Amino acid sequence: MKKSIGFLGPQGTFSHEAALTYTSDKNCILKGYASIQEVLTAVENNEIDEAVVPIENSLEGAINVTLDFLARENDLYIVNELIIPINLNLVVKNGTAAEDIKMIISHPQPLGQCRNYLNDYFQSAIQIEENSTSKAAQRVVAGDGTYAAIASDIAAKIYSLDILAADIQDVQNNHTRFVIISRGLQKRTGADKTSIVFSTDNKPGSLYRILDIFSLWDINMTRIESRPAKNGLGQYIFFVDIDGHVEDQDVFDALTMIQRKTSFYRYIGSYPVFTI
Amino acid sequence: MKKSIGFLGPQGTFSHEAALTYTSDKNCILKGYASIQEVLTAVENNEIDEAVVPIENSLEGAINVTLDFLARENDLYIVNELIIPINLNLVVKNGTAAEDIKMIISHPQPLGQCRNYLNDYFQSAIQIEENSTSKAAQRVVAGDGTYAAIASDIAAKIYSLDILAADIQDVQNNHTRFVIISRGLQKRTGADKTSIVFSTDNKPGSLYRILDIFSLWDINMTRIESRPAKNGLGQYIFFVDIDGHVEDQDVFDALTMIQRKTSFYRYIGSYPVFTI
Repeated sequence: MKKSIGFLGPQGTFSHEAALTYTSDKNCILKGYASIQEVLTAVENNEIDEAVVPIENSLEGAINVTLDFLARENDLYIVNELIIPINLNLVVKNGTAAEDIKMIISHPQPLGQCRNYLNDYFQSAIQIEENSTSKAAQRVVAGDGTYAAIASDIAAKIYSLDILAADIQDVQNNHTRFVIISRGLQKRTGADKTSIVFSTDNKPGSLYRILDIFSLWDINMTRIESRPAKNGLGQYIFFVDIDGHVEDQDVFDALTMIQRKTSFYRYIGSYPVFTI
Repeated sequence: MKKSIGFLGPQGTFSHEAALTYTSDKNCILKGYASIQEVLTAVENNEIDEAVVPIENSLEGAINVTLDFLARENDLYIVNELIIPINLNLVVKNGTAAEDIKMIISHPQPLGQCRNYLNDYFQSAIQIEENSTSKAAQRVVAGDGTYAAIASDIAAKIYSLDILAADIQDVQNNHTRFVIISRGLQKRTGADKTSIVFSTDNKPGSLYRILDIFSLWDINMTRIESRPAKNGLGQYIFFVDIDGHVEDQDVFDALTMIQRKTSFYRYIGSYPVFTI
């Protein structure tokens, strides 16, 4: 049976592009979903085998919906990662000029990634949030010629829209890291990383004591991201990425110790490091 | 001359509520701005004395615009903090029923704070992003009866809207921390905290070595937040809050050491800890 892979649809989103890249050498069925929450729930409910979701952008930072979902005890794990360059364009219906634009529609992340551009050139335009860049493009198609979307090259092509301005992101070096989420675990390749999430007691130095464990085992932490624990201001959970696979003895030992020293702990997966 | 204080307007936003609380015992002129960026730029340009801006919410986490602005070398400092409870309501025009609602408008943060509620009860409604909860309420007033906004009690009162559902945030314990931004520095009170932002070399263990400095000086770190350095994936800047004032000798010594050991460092201010 063919593997089924879900992504944040409709066609033409960056998640779609990531899903196409991920499955280019595999025989898979791709399926678009309306939100990150829906595509992850579909994996959880066994409707699809895997989901391709964004986790981090080089300008706007963490994708909170994805992190908050992974923090839940839902038996979902990261089995792969994938980094793709993000080039954002202002796309309009044929005939729309810059001065006609009253509303600019996109996903909140691209809107944030073009914050300076929009402030400089379209300060009076209303910014409208959509679930995806492609949905935004669809609304421009259905619109009255006063709408613009921030979307990918592919979306412009799929929905026959004009690119009024290309590469409008505030910083040119713009990449998004996607992760592949599955119900199973990934085997060791020898060039892996591991993701965990935990919370510490709210005592002085408690985070430092956890990071000390990595230091003791000579494990390199490549990323730390805090999110609210949602039970009160000043309470956090920490997402940490480290080098190595959980089947490596030192990683296994360090994580065992961390699990003992934290008030909440969840292993999110070990998976091959993406290299361009 | 009266002090002038800017906030994220229009009237009825949670920032407005925070500004009213902050100035309740002072004789000040309050001035609303259309975005967080604009109100902070107004302080930078000497148009107003201080700005009241959100920095962190107990459900949705950091306010990225505020953090990214504070990371810039702009001679702006935090001089105070303030925590207010956030109660979110679904507000509509008189006569609108739940089944009439096609669009739900709010600031991205409240939309995120009501994510589960909206998924459960209004999955087919389009979510529209506005610059503030009050702007969203104004659009409901001007709308055709198919709009709803997520806004404060005060906004409902100011704009004469009905509260269709009260306290719709996903977790009841919902607070936002606001900071007061000024061009000057705050004096020591004896119960202070200090905020800094820095980046480390991209080497194994470099963040750990910085946190080690706090540990050496017995300084308690109360918060760490990472944001992308914006020059590439995997490069971060870290916002850290610690107990104490920069005029305390141990804090001063630790920060001097941290400045020496980081590739980028900015002192954001020392200010009294808010206690309810």
